[in-house]
Amino acid sequence: MIVRERLVQAAREGVVAWEGLVAHGRGEAFDYILGERSVPEALEAERAGTAHLLTARRPVISVNGNVAVLAAPEVKQLAEATEAAVEVNLFHRTEERVGKIIHLLHDAGLDSALGADPDASIPGLDHPRALCVKEGIYDADVVLVPLEDGDRAEALVKMGKVVISVDLNPLSRTSRAATVAIVDDVTRALQNMTRLAAELAQNIDAIAMAKQEYQKESNLAGIMRAIRDNLGRGSG
Amino acid sequence: MIVRERLVQAAREGVVAWEGLVAHGRGEAFDYILGERSVPEALEAERAGTAHLLTARRPVISVNGNVAVLAAPEVKQLAEATEAAVEVNLFHRTEERVGKIIHLLHDAGLDSALGADPDASIPGLDHPRALCVKEGIYDADVVLVPLEDGDRAEALVKMGKVVISVDLNPLSRTSRAATVAIVDDVTRALQNMTRLAAELAQNIDAIAMAKQEYQKESNLAGIMRAIRDNLGRGSG
Repeated sequence: MIVRERLVQAAREGVVAWEGLVAHGRGEAFDYILGERSVPEALEAERAGTAHLLTARRPVISVNGNVAVLAAPEVKQLAEATEAAVEVNLFHRTEERVGKIIHLLHDAGLDSALGADPDASIPGLDHPRALCVKEGIYDADVVLVPLEDGDRAEALVKMGKVVISVDLNPLSRTSRAATVAIVDDVTRALQNMTRLAAELAQNIDAIAMAKQEYQKESNLAGIMRAIRDNLGRGSG
Repeated sequence: MIVRERLVQAAREGVVAWEGLVAHGRGEAFDYILGERSVPEALEAERAGTAHLLTARRPVISVNGNVAVLAAPEVKQLAEATEAAVEVNLFHRTEERVGKIIHLLHDAGLDSALGADPDASIPGLDHPRALCVKEGIYDADVVLVPLEDGDRAEALVKMGKVVISVDLNPLSRTSRAATVAIVDDVTRALQNMTRLAAELAQNIDAIAMAKQEYQKESNLAGIMRAIRDNLGRGSG
């Protein structure tokens, strides 16, 4: 409840787009039917995603309004743990909102977020949705996109990047497009990944295995089973 | 997509509360996993709810911001078909918002919506959530509450009323509390009920049977099965 109120307050202040509130509601519903916990498949995907970030040449974490409001400290911790750059990248982009989000990240201790001065474009997207930073998302080999729009996730995959999504809908276009599809709440996902980064950083074999063992289709099928089992209990 | 944009626009104009956008998102997610259609169990509940409205001494349809924006013409049609009163009743009540919603209903041809001058209180709720109209919801024997909050649905049941909910989450407190729990999109539900009212109005035996045959628990169990089946297909 407190989370939702924080987001509504952020919308009032112009940090989150109105559409971000609707998207949050959709996430709430899926989180609810998954039992409001990180299911084993989510942890498996988080492990694989973390392994990709740790072995990337240029890892980037993409941040929008919802992510900044819900999990700015968690973004900072994961960025440090994986030496990833952070770029503010908005579907409903206004320069004012970008500025407010960078300010929020700054308050959480992240001084170097990119995004205020985009100098590149993601191919296949309309301006201003395509805008990004050359040394950030544009040149990244691995991008973590929590709560990302389907068009942009697809466009980033087409650019040849490893795309790690965090999206509570296992059937969304974003989850379908991503290389690694994490189906979990964004705050829990980033916390888990920071913990996993510390664990994996010690062990190069474990990193290779985490990447190898993750099979997206069977992982998402497991998520669907978890939803069905959970709904079965609920109606019992 | 157009529906969502209409709601966001209404939030900008102060007709819908910000929290209403989050609630809409939750509904969207459940509608999505139900296949964005009226499942047979929904039609069964709509039939029972319509029968209750048709045989009520004082039927009332409760309208909030989301309902007015999404389905004002459908509210008007169902009110006419069942001779129900319409009362604007808001969880996040402001007099300004009540006025705007009455204006919206007026534009849809509904001239007599109650709610601007509440003179009674629903027992067990905090002011201003408790506010209602004596000759409207307070004295009603049957109340249709589309997109209603759980606390208020429970309080209306405690008052001894027949409460008919429209809520896409079959496990919500509103669905659990209601006498008749319709799990369907609000626009589709009201359209179906208007059609069913015309059908049932001719036949007093059919009305009695529709009320008698509806079993809430088995109906909701059927909804859960529909969700599970649908998710099964989705992951195939």
